[in-house]
Amino acid sequence: MTQVLIIGAAGMLGQKLTRRILTENTFGPADRLTLFDRAFSDTAPGVTPLTGDLTQPGMIQSLAARRPDVIFHLAAIVSGQAEAEFDLGWNVNLMAMWDLLSALRHEHEASGGQYRPRLVFASSIAVFGAPFPDRIEDDFLCAPLTSYGVQKAASELMISDFSRKGFIDGLSLRLPTLCVRPGKANLAASSFFSGIIREPLNGDCAVLPVPDTVRHWHASPRAAARFLTHAAALDTDQLQGRNALNMPGVSCTVAEQIEALRNVGGQAAVDLIKPEPDATIGNIVAGWPRDFIPERARALGFEAEGSFEEIIKTYLEDDFTG
Amino acid sequence: MTQVLIIGAAGMLGQKLTRRILTENTFGPADRLTLFDRAFSDTAPGVTPLTGDLTQPGMIQSLAARRPDVIFHLAAIVSGQAEAEFDLGWNVNLMAMWDLLSALRHEHEASGGQYRPRLVFASSIAVFGAPFPDRIEDDFLCAPLTSYGVQKAASELMISDFSRKGFIDGLSLRLPTLCVRPGKANLAASSFFSGIIREPLNGDCAVLPVPDTVRHWHASPRAAARFLTHAAALDTDQLQGRNALNMPGVSCTVAEQIEALRNVGGQAAVDLIKPEPDATIGNIVAGWPRDFIPERARALGFEAEGSFEEIIKTYLEDDFTG
Repeated sequence: MTQVLIIGAAGMLGQKLTRRILTENTFGPADRLTLFDRAFSDTAPGVTPLTGDLTQPGMIQSLAARRPDVIFHLAAIVSGQAEAEFDLGWNVNLMAMWDLLSALRHEHEASGGQYRPRLVFASSIAVFGAPFPDRIEDDFLCAPLTSYGVQKAASELMISDFSRKGFIDGLSLRLPTLCVRPGKANLAASSFFSGIIREPLNGDCAVLPVPDTVRHWHASPRAAARFLTHAAALDTDQLQGRNALNMPGVSCTVAEQIEALRNVGGQAAVDLIKPEPDATIGNIVAGWPRDFIPERARALGFEAEGSFEEIIKTYLEDDFTG
Repeated sequence: MTQVLIIGAAGMLGQKLTRRILTENTFGPADRLTLFDRAFSDTAPGVTPLTGDLTQPGMIQSLAARRPDVIFHLAAIVSGQAEAEFDLGWNVNLMAMWDLLSALRHEHEASGGQYRPRLVFASSIAVFGAPFPDRIEDDFLCAPLTSYGVQKAASELMISDFSRKGFIDGLSLRLPTLCVRPGKANLAASSFFSGIIREPLNGDCAVLPVPDTVRHWHASPRAAARFLTHAAALDTDQLQGRNALNMPGVSCTVAEQIEALRNVGGQAAVDLIKPEPDATIGNIVAGWPRDFIPERARALGFEAEGSFEEIIKTYLEDDFTG
């Protein structure tokens, strides 16, 4: 049986992943699934929830000592907070990764080399920074423009090296912006990409702070959860040492998002979108990737939606409660 | 007056840089130049030599507390040793960089934001790993195949972020293989690139462990020292947030190196090169970059030699004692 640990399981993606694993029985019985986060509002029956702070001394070592076969690492201080709270961002997003890798290496060595867990790390397209080519290829440099992006990129490098040395068997997935996010709007600069779809479908107004010519890279939360379980089962020899992968997604402009909304929700939904240009958000978004050619990930079997309309339909199926 | 600190000053490049600064009076009087390393065999008059271990608690903080205006960070556990001694490599090559950046940030904040030193970091083309295009452009990804390369790449990311935040004003120079290295052969896999020139010029035999079709990227120690002082004076606004630069160099095959040796030292020198194929060295070298298009660095005024023959002549002028 496969022991599975999800670090950062209480977040939106962690919940999607948990549900996917339980529904599809990806790894086997649910009592082998351990969820870790700072707090949980609720968890599925038969699942072990563990609460704690990753930066608390001994916490990561105790997680590693359980010797999970598969570890999903989704915990992060998000972009805006990592900019505002510099030390917290580095401690959680990089130093905790170092501590996790060191603890897993310790278990590897203590096991006489038998224990070598699969580690699937949720990285981000924030590892890239402008200026960009129109479409980013798999061998484009990481030049992040945020501390969050730097911490993700440095984590990827560490995972590659610990994997190359054989201590773990890890890989990093650079996730697109997840859209449509369920729930309420948050303070992330990217929040409007989901808001302009989610709120109108609920009959509520949504603010659009950027011109509708802005192009961006999206995948649904369902696709992201599928990327993660696909990565857990991947033959990593195929990576040939390049353990960070640009995930597939849908590249579209805000105008194309709105057109897809019209097709699904009608003109009445579109009329609820209120353009209110915000220069701050506009400048942040201008530094984000717009499009990728994720050849390697596609060749390895990672699949996203084929269109933004499909992304909206995924939201309606998985999360819409209106 | 400018306070200058060289960390790792006793190594070959540190000595070259020290001599260059003293000879050219790059920054002003020599008593403002502080050299740090584990030990020194000798130092120039008027220069302050400090000895210590970078990983010793408090050492880096005491260096930062001197508030040097310009810091050259050349200290490293070299590639082969970082592979063999995993913890030592990470401690010196990455964790000491983190401690240095944290200590400099502390001084920045303690000074009310006035102190913001220029940090020039000696990175390496080891941040790149095969497969490569024939010529590596400035936006090619870092996918290092050694712990040393990973540690250099992660250090570059940290320097970029601390610079973006305004705590320091740093940049990283990805140095070519330095050739012709003076002194004795060492255990580095790259040692033969210098050996096949240096030993024959001294009338000694040299072993060539790879086919003469192997292509590699070279610059003289003199050019590397010039890169470093040029970087210390650079207007870093020009970097636009991409603070790691591929340095210029000379791309040539071993056959072209040998041809240049023939032009300078005659057939008698060439006859002292003994081909002795070594599969281990051959495999290591196959993973190394062969050629670059270092457009950004050239546009910023960094200049290497124009030919391998010029590199040999630089060696004869600067280091040859035969």
